[in-house]
Amino acid sequence: MKSGKKLRSDIAWSTSDRIGVLGYDLCRDLIGKVSLGDMGFLEVTGRLPDARESKMFNALLVTLVEHGIVPSTLAARMTHAGAPEAMQAAVAAGLLGLGSVFVGSTENAARMLKDALPDPGNKTDLRALAEKVVDDYRADRRILPGLGHPIHKPVDPRTGRLFNIARATGFNGPYIDLMKRISKRAEKVLQRPLPINATGAIGAIACEMNLPWQVCRGLGVMARAVGLVGHVLEESRQPIAMEVWHRTETESSAHTRGKLRQKK
Amino acid sequence: MKSGKKLRSDIAWSTSDRIGVLGYDLCRDLIGKVSLGDMGFLEVTGRLPDARESKMFNALLVTLVEHGIVPSTLAARMTHAGAPEAMQAAVAAGLLGLGSVFVGSTENAARMLKDALPDPGNKTDLRALAEKVVDDYRADRRILPGLGHPIHKPVDPRTGRLFNIARATGFNGPYIDLMKRISKRAEKVLQRPLPINATGAIGAIACEMNLPWQVCRGLGVMARAVGLVGHVLEESRQPIAMEVWHRTETESSAHTRGKLRQKK
Amino acid sequence: MKSGKKLRSDIAWSTSDRIGVLGYDLCRDLIGKVSLGDMGFLEVTGRLPDARESKMFNALLVTLVEHGIVPSTLAARMTHAGAPEAMQAAVAAGLLGLGSVFVGSTENAARMLKDALPDPGNKTDLRALAEKVVDDYRADRRILPGLGHPIHKPVDPRTGRLFNIARATGFNGPYIDLMKRISKRAEKVLQRPLPINATGAIGAIACEMNLPWQVCRGLGVMARAVGLVGHVLEESRQPIAMEVWHRTETESSAHTRGKLRQKK
Amino acid sequence: MKSGKKLRSDIAWSTSDRIGVLGYDLCRDLIGKVSLGDMGFLEVTGRLPDARESKMFNALLVTLVEHGIVPSTLAARMTHAGAPEAMQAAVAAGLLGLGSVFVGSTENAARMLKDALPDPGNKTDLRALAEKVVDDYRADRRILPGLGHPIHKPVDPRTGRLFNIARATGFNGPYIDLMKRISKRAEKVLQRPLPINATGAIGAIACEMNLPWQVCRGLGVMARAVGLVGHVLEESRQPIAMEVWHRTETESSAHTRGKLRQKK
Repeated sequence: MKSGKKLRSDIAWSTSDRIGVLGYDLCRDLIGKVSLGDMGFLEVTGRLPDARESKMFNALLVTLVEHGIVPSTLAARMTHAGAPEAMQAAVAAGLLGLGSVFVGSTENAARMLKDALPDPGNKTDLRALAEKVVDDYRADRRILPGLGHPIHKPVDPRTGRLFNIARATGFNGPYIDLMKRISKRAEKVLQRPLPINATGAIGAIACEMNLPWQVCRGLGVMARAVGLVGHVLEESRQPIAMEVWHRTETESSAHTRGKLRQKK
Repeated sequence: MKSGKKLRSDIAWSTSDRIGVLGYDLCRDLIGKVSLGDMGFLEVTGRLPDARESKMFNALLVTLVEHGIVPSTLAARMTHAGAPEAMQAAVAAGLLGLGSVFVGSTENAARMLKDALPDPGNKTDLRALAEKVVDDYRADRRILPGLGHPIHKPVDPRTGRLFNIARATGFNGPYIDLMKRISKRAEKVLQRPLPINATGAIGAIACEMNLPWQVCRGLGVMARAVGLVGHVLEESRQPIAMEVWHRTETESSAHTRGKLRQKK
Repeated sequence: MKSGKKLRSDIAWSTSDRIGVLGYDLCRDLIGKVSLGDMGFLEVTGRLPDARESKMFNALLVTLVEHGIVPSTLAARMTHAGAPEAMQAAVAAGLLGLGSVFVGSTENAARMLKDALPDPGNKTDLRALAEKVVDDYRADRRILPGLGHPIHKPVDPRTGRLFNIARATGFNGPYIDLMKRISKRAEKVLQRPLPINATGAIGAIACEMNLPWQVCRGLGVMARAVGLVGHVLEESRQPIAMEVWHRTETESSAHTRGKLRQKK
Repeated sequence: MKSGKKLRSDIAWSTSDRIGVLGYDLCRDLIGKVSLGDMGFLEVTGRLPDARESKMFNALLVTLVEHGIVPSTLAARMTHAGAPEAMQAAVAAGLLGLGSVFVGSTENAARMLKDALPDPGNKTDLRALAEKVVDDYRADRRILPGLGHPIHKPVDPRTGRLFNIARATGFNGPYIDLMKRISKRAEKVLQRPLPINATGAIGAIACEMNLPWQVCRGLGVMARAVGLVGHVLEESRQPIAMEVWHRTETESSAHTRGKLRQKK
């Protein structure tokens, strides 16, 4: 195979006495000056956040850190049960489930909003736009992302909190407005409560912050890695994986235990 | 197999209108109030940090976020090249290499210090203790963790910065002192520069903050997940994986290309 | 959340003196009687293969085991460099890249064929069907899966071998015929060589064997796990990861080394 | 960092019309000629097995493929629940738990035997050697690997089957003998049944086959990857992950639900 392309990464460099990270001096500008969440903003945008960006961005991440016992934390705990010497592998196993079912809806919401309104500066009839989005999704039999929640009913408490912070930090704009109108329209058309859930709120705010929709899954991955470390540490002190295994094995194989095919 | 143990996790719960995370109300106490790094402190200690703990803890994490092109970021980029639709898998692949060779030295340093000085309140002759630690490691032919660096010579610039912050936040104590004495003693005995590197500094500060050594790998995992997201995003814009692959394949198989065993 | 569904898995059970695997007695019927590849057939179909199924299925798997230095084997080797104590993690890192870019084309080919010809018993004008498939893919600007190869030109040597075995084992039927006609038609319409590659051949044969297209990625995963173990073992004896890292780091950061933003 | 080492891999190469794998022509010598298990032997030893090696090696792998619902298959199923689009990630998550707790005992058994008897051709008093091994492990308070099983009592049915095949294929030698004597001695000294389990039998047979102990974990990884594919496919048809999640969440958080710290 032919090759010859120059390799290039703009992220970091080291010399004997200095480390550069995206143009900042790690020791002078970052360590002791900024928080882990700000480093996340730096990694996804290439620059440090200002104060209101830092507040909003950290709020998005903090919302995503912890969901208690869910499939991804159970995958991490199951992995720890077999390989307690490799915490990094348990956290990695937990991240692997952050796919289309749970974390995907944040990026889907951001993408829906950005596709509908590519330029937020454009004067648009958001009400008509929301109707069109809902109608298009229904016509394609696609699920509207970021709406509804199995537990948080009739409203998701995280959404109001995040939108309040967006207002306080100046990130309240057309994408949040559009998301609200889509929720209203969907509730009217589908005749059931479809409040904006946390993933919908985060998707809308990511658009307000001018983050590309591709970044949204990354927010979930960063934040959940922090939470997964906590679950692995709890599992090492107060395990549940072995008990969940034994119960699941016993029940799931009960109907077949002892049964073999006829030998031919 | 017998079972019957009660399942118990203290981390989180949800009701229709509220979410509890380690005793805090997610919407009232955490979102918009604390940073991602503070959530990390909460996950590993079970409580929020005070201001000086927050500053010190975030400084440790920020130090670990980014190391540029290293084996773990290359593993993430290689994975992205094959499965660009699954960012979480690329980040997970990057985390999997955070094992004994790179990240392990932080926990090894913390463990060495904690084993040598289980109770930091004890009046101890730290100079004699440092001599004993160095002698014991040499006798067992074990590598002293947290000392020396292939690039950052004669000193690791991160160490001084972290120790300055430790002084400013009141986390300067016997573990940092002991680590410095171990470095001095090792340099004298082994007759070469062995300054405290970043992993040694972080291990010592973790002890000062009363974090168990088992937590140290978790700090690396949290921080590197943030950095790995940045590498995957850069790889999607400005790829290097395919070129590295082609060059490596071409060179590594050149000696054998076209050669087959004699057919018997 | 409500629950109450019965848990059920039909795969295996154990008692003190016996182990059942999909209805077979592990010790009596499987160990020493069947090969690893046959176990793969059992896992994906729920029954053991007959002799011709075994021959064809193992041929598909053997084709997929080894591709030398590729992104997934490099990801495994990079992971091993950081965590040599965790071979399972290095293999897992290698599997994570088996996504849409490389392994996905097998399932895409199988799906294309199965969608075009849901019932292989139906008398159909395969020539007209091939034209329709090619036209539809072009109209949707989708890439035709399973055709063309950057190295194996003008033909992929694996394809002829696999089709010969399909003929010898009685798995030569309408899906292979349709795949050949799609290749011919695509070459004519697109005016360039587009021979059936190994993933296209495997996708077609999987259809002939009545394996659902969802199974195809599983074949790649099983087979590549075997090859990845070999790469990790070679890396431990004869490492390349560290050297590839150093070269890549040096070149990719050269343009930015030493450069910092102006301090504001 | 300095570099300059030549990159070298002996595993595979491709030209336009030929593919070499460890010196064999993939299309002429491997596809349609050998089984997946034989490819595994090739990957770990560098050559194809003869008939008796093939039988014994496949028997070892077949033993390890399937253990039903265990922590690793649950981790895979949990991952599938979140990312059903990425089967490779679910299998990878399952592999990540193949660490020290379950799969590690095979390599520990092989290592124990090889350390005790580095050269199998040496005339040794195996009875005395077994006594010494048991005494040494007890003195160091280490667990003797490969002995005892929570379910398979008083004997592990896989062990007898594997040793029968070893006898039939000529792999019955001093390591199996030594393992049996260690089991006997341990039962006498510890006063409880400690029969050789499957991991002990596989470790001993691996030594008889002259496979390095480092290879043993690889056998487990290869074999379990095959089984994990079956579990992911079953989970997609007949899911249990969501139900296990809901039950576990409900029970594990019941004691804390609704409880918050006093606001200070």
